[in-house]
Amino acid sequence: MPRTTTHSVQVEFGDCDPAGIVFFPNFSRWMDAASLSFFMQCGVPPWRELVKTRGIVGTPLLEINTRFKQAATYGQRLTVETHVSEWRARTFTQVHRVTRARDGGGADLICEGTEVRAFVHRDPEDPDRLRALPVPDDIRALCE
Amino acid sequence: MPRTTTHSVQVEFGDCDPAGIVFFPNFSRWMDAASLSFFMQCGVPPWRELVKTRGIVGTPLLEINTRFKQAATYGQRLTVETHVSEWRARTFTQVHRVTRARDGGGADLICEGTEVRAFVHRDPEDPDRLRALPVPDDIRALCE
Amino acid sequence: MPRTTTHSVQVEFGDCDPAGIVFFPNFSRWMDAASLSFFMQCGVPPWRELVKTRGIVGTPLLEINTRFKQAATYGQRLTVETHVSEWRARTFTQVHRVTRARDGGGADLICEGTEVRAFVHRDPEDPDRLRALPVPDDIRALCE
Amino acid sequence: MPRTTTHSVQVEFGDCDPAGIVFFPNFSRWMDAASLSFFMQCGVPPWRELVKTRGIVGTPLLEINTRFKQAATYGQRLTVETHVSEWRARTFTQVHRVTRARDGGGADLICEGTEVRAFVHRDPEDPDRLRALPVPDDIRALCE
Repeated sequence: MPRTTTHSVQVEFGDCDPAGIVFFPNFSRWMDAASLSFFMQCGVPPWRELVKTRGIVGTPLLEINTRFKQAATYGQRLTVETHVSEWRARTFTQVHRVTRARDGGGADLICEGTEVRAFVHRDPEDPDRLRALPVPDDIRALCE
Repeated sequence: MPRTTTHSVQVEFGDCDPAGIVFFPNFSRWMDAASLSFFMQCGVPPWRELVKTRGIVGTPLLEINTRFKQAATYGQRLTVETHVSEWRARTFTQVHRVTRARDGGGADLICEGTEVRAFVHRDPEDPDRLRALPVPDDIRALCE
Repeated sequence: MPRTTTHSVQVEFGDCDPAGIVFFPNFSRWMDAASLSFFMQCGVPPWRELVKTRGIVGTPLLEINTRFKQAATYGQRLTVETHVSEWRARTFTQVHRVTRARDGGGADLICEGTEVRAFVHRDPEDPDRLRALPVPDDIRALCE
Repeated sequence: MPRTTTHSVQVEFGDCDPAGIVFFPNFSRWMDAASLSFFMQCGVPPWRELVKTRGIVGTPLLEINTRFKQAATYGQRLTVETHVSEWRARTFTQVHRVTRARDGGGADLICEGTEVRAFVHRDPEDPDRLRALPVPDDIRALCE
């Protein structure tokens, strides 16, 4: 079983659109927070430390696939469960399941996102460009 | 060739994250704006009119797949090209290509999103629930 | 002493800008969440209930003054303390103090916002317009 | 008359809240974009250039006061008019008037924001801290 972390989200009024439901880019925002929370819960320092010590700027997305199952609205608390489903040489796949506890027990799946990400640093010749790095072994070891 | 509309986006400082690049949920936000802009450019009234005349609340997402090719940053202007690649009985697939003009001509693909959406109304028995409607023929005709 | 509630905020990577600090409109977002949280912690139903039972759509802002004292960044937890400093016939003033706990005890003030808000309903003759209502006595009583 | 620039904003569906009107922190976001747009229209390079050439990271807010006059909703185009009302040794005051053109001529004031900002650089001894700089004379000259 891969290591799994949880990240809690309180849905706010301003997260919802005129239809009264969560404006979906907020789910991407919460999955991004859950992604970083995963690394920090695994013991990886925040990017602002890693950029100084190892040049790692973060883990930008290469691809994201999100399936929406149920709407959510403000006043509700959601849980994002996150794990890495696959590590490759230069990328990894992270999965986020967003659920809402049901009255009386159990939980409803709100949406699920599958992300492909890479660790990046700044190109030494052109610091405005970000370049993928091999997945660092020590970071991977912390997260498995 | 399906009908294609364009939607212009100015990337702002606040759209970017500590790595200095667009925080990716903003691309979802811009694709959502491009999705509605597509319908309005095709002659469909805004949702706040359709909700009064026909009960149509909007076109929430069922699924989105986004592939990120290049980073973008503030001060840049992006173009989102949008078309519907497939109409089905109760859902449709909308494709958004986000590009940035290159100095000297041509354009770089920044990211591309493929969305599955449905027209929804409020469940007459439980107005807090949104229900998919058959794709309205007249709206589809305007958009083809 | 007026009733004071607290609302907790985890600062996320995507809340920060290219300078690495919280992009300030997020403080407005968190103060708005703290404003609604204040009412709900005082026992007032969420707006989506009040709109059905009493036509109250929410408490839009008439004015906000925010003073920023220190920057905050991601990975930090902030606390928003909220109280109503003045009730008037049709408006009220709500104050939000955003602090960050200091290692070793105490807390630093990050920013402070003073908001003037009104309870509104939809104009019966033109539902697209929102109109201020007299502050409801029962809601005020819950919040004092 | 101080130099005044304009910045155009298209209000999107996702900028609006369950009451169907612009969620107010978006006005702060648009004023921030108008603030940077003011400097760039005056010929000041973007912060990501100035940070390299002169260490200037940006112009964070010290205070903002915003008065809301009318609501706005999606599908509407707003104009932000921006000028600097006062330059001081280490801070300046920037004013943003957000208006919406009226059918038949004229414009309605939606909201108005008065910001106190400072040019900042990173503290050489503690790069995580931002420090106010004297307002650079050459930048001020471009903006008057």
